[in-house]
Amino acid sequence: MTARPLHDHSRLSINDATTKAQWTLEQAIQGYSAQGVRGISVWRDKLAECGVPRAAALLADHGMTVTGLCRGGMFPAPTAVERRAAIDDNRRAIEEAVAIGAQCLVLVAGGLPKGAKDLVGARMMVQDGIAAVLEEARAAGMPLAIEPLHPMYAADRCCINTMAQANDLCDRLGPGVGIAVDVYHVWWDPDLDRQIRRAGKDRLLAFHICDWLIPTRDLLLDRGMMGDGIIDIPLIRGWVEEAGYEGFHEVEIFSAETWWKRDPNEVVTVCKERYLTVV
Amino acid sequence: MTARPLHDHSRLSINDATTKAQWTLEQAIQGYSAQGVRGISVWRDKLAECGVPRAAALLADHGMTVTGLCRGGMFPAPTAVERRAAIDDNRRAIEEAVAIGAQCLVLVAGGLPKGAKDLVGARMMVQDGIAAVLEEARAAGMPLAIEPLHPMYAADRCCINTMAQANDLCDRLGPGVGIAVDVYHVWWDPDLDRQIRRAGKDRLLAFHICDWLIPTRDLLLDRGMMGDGIIDIPLIRGWVEEAGYEGFHEVEIFSAETWWKRDPNEVVTVCKERYLTVV
Repeated sequence: MTARPLHDHSRLSINDATTKAQWTLEQAIQGYSAQGVRGISVWRDKLAECGVPRAAALLADHGMTVTGLCRGGMFPAPTAVERRAAIDDNRRAIEEAVAIGAQCLVLVAGGLPKGAKDLVGARMMVQDGIAAVLEEARAAGMPLAIEPLHPMYAADRCCINTMAQANDLCDRLGPGVGIAVDVYHVWWDPDLDRQIRRAGKDRLLAFHICDWLIPTRDLLLDRGMMGDGIIDIPLIRGWVEEAGYEGFHEVEIFSAETWWKRDPNEVVTVCKERYLTVV
Repeated sequence: MTARPLHDHSRLSINDATTKAQWTLEQAIQGYSAQGVRGISVWRDKLAECGVPRAAALLADHGMTVTGLCRGGMFPAPTAVERRAAIDDNRRAIEEAVAIGAQCLVLVAGGLPKGAKDLVGARMMVQDGIAAVLEEARAAGMPLAIEPLHPMYAADRCCINTMAQANDLCDRLGPGVGIAVDVYHVWWDPDLDRQIRRAGKDRLLAFHICDWLIPTRDLLLDRGMMGDGIIDIPLIRGWVEEAGYEGFHEVEIFSAETWWKRDPNEVVTVCKERYLTVV
């Protein structure tokens, strides 16, 4: 079922990676809110640059809803020492997410450990890594949002590649863990509808939007603006809403050659236009 | 279960796309057989250039086993006229496959029709297209090998993206249809082992090998030589052999910047070396 059209921007969020090349976090907060965008998702490199207390104050002053902190995860590593370091880093990420009032900490699982080919082992490291920080996340009231990434990132970025896998992980890990659904990563999945229903309202922690371009010139940095590609976004939004999702719709576009080269105010304007016409 | 090491080249096949930039089909037949490679897979553009009768004679004279003709498929299209044209083209492909004694006709399903976003509809067009040529393929004794392609090709090349989907199609279409398993397309799939078992000996029509590079610089033309990437090829070969597959192992490497620029005789030599050490 295709979703009903959107009539206002009250649930629009923009991930600051969308204007990453042009704006600092402070500029993004100001730039988004100046155009009436009330949601933002924050990357940790921008957050570190701004400083956590200052960012928290700016976000609060501008009345921004923080739809996520990107990112925790990156658990697989060749040695136990490195895996512990990754777990420690996820602890800090939980603290930062709490400090800025994020609705969830997005987890990008990590790919194969350097030099390894054992995908099953890597996936187990992800499960173990999340389990290691889960009590802390629960205690802090910070939901962990596993983000299945497109299979083209399985080797070097994220070995959780389908909603089914994310749901299986949630089954095994229990409360405190959910899923971030990004249309870019899951639109191709013949099982998507069913797995969104399986996730249900409690697990659906975030909904990310952009588009898949034809041709796609780069595996990482050639995402499209909504409407410029082939993803049926209203269809997928319909599925997540039917499953009970009532949160924000977060635009996240990595686009080295197009949107990162445009005037960032114009990028925000186009996000807003497209949001009402093709999302 | 990882496969037992290979000790000779009796089941090595090379897809002529691997030396596409350097050799005509005639040169490939001569070049592969000169180094004792007994299997070859043929693309239709090279076949057309050579001429079907002449190619058939050359293949027979050199005692080559033709492990596949690439490719049929490409069924989805915006109009009924175009879909019928695609079906007619698949009929010709079946005839060509018979003429050169190919073990199967490889089907690359096709992506979304131009301008469309309806993935479910595209997948139905694929099923309808295969169904339309299936009686002819059966009568000709030419198995149709559905090749699930990596999800990064779902939009523009092939909307059949997992072994599960290919198996579902085989269930619905009945005898005469099977699957070509290419490690490049399926290595990431958490369900791979199970779906290979589900396919079983009768459906496993071809096994293609190459490697996934880190980084991958191009979505289409940056495949790696076996051993240069992160795919656990012996693991997957073990699965297909455990399921009963006894056919050739076909090297298919699209590599604009590396292997298509090397001396083709050297490419064949490296394929042979790697075949005994990392496959």
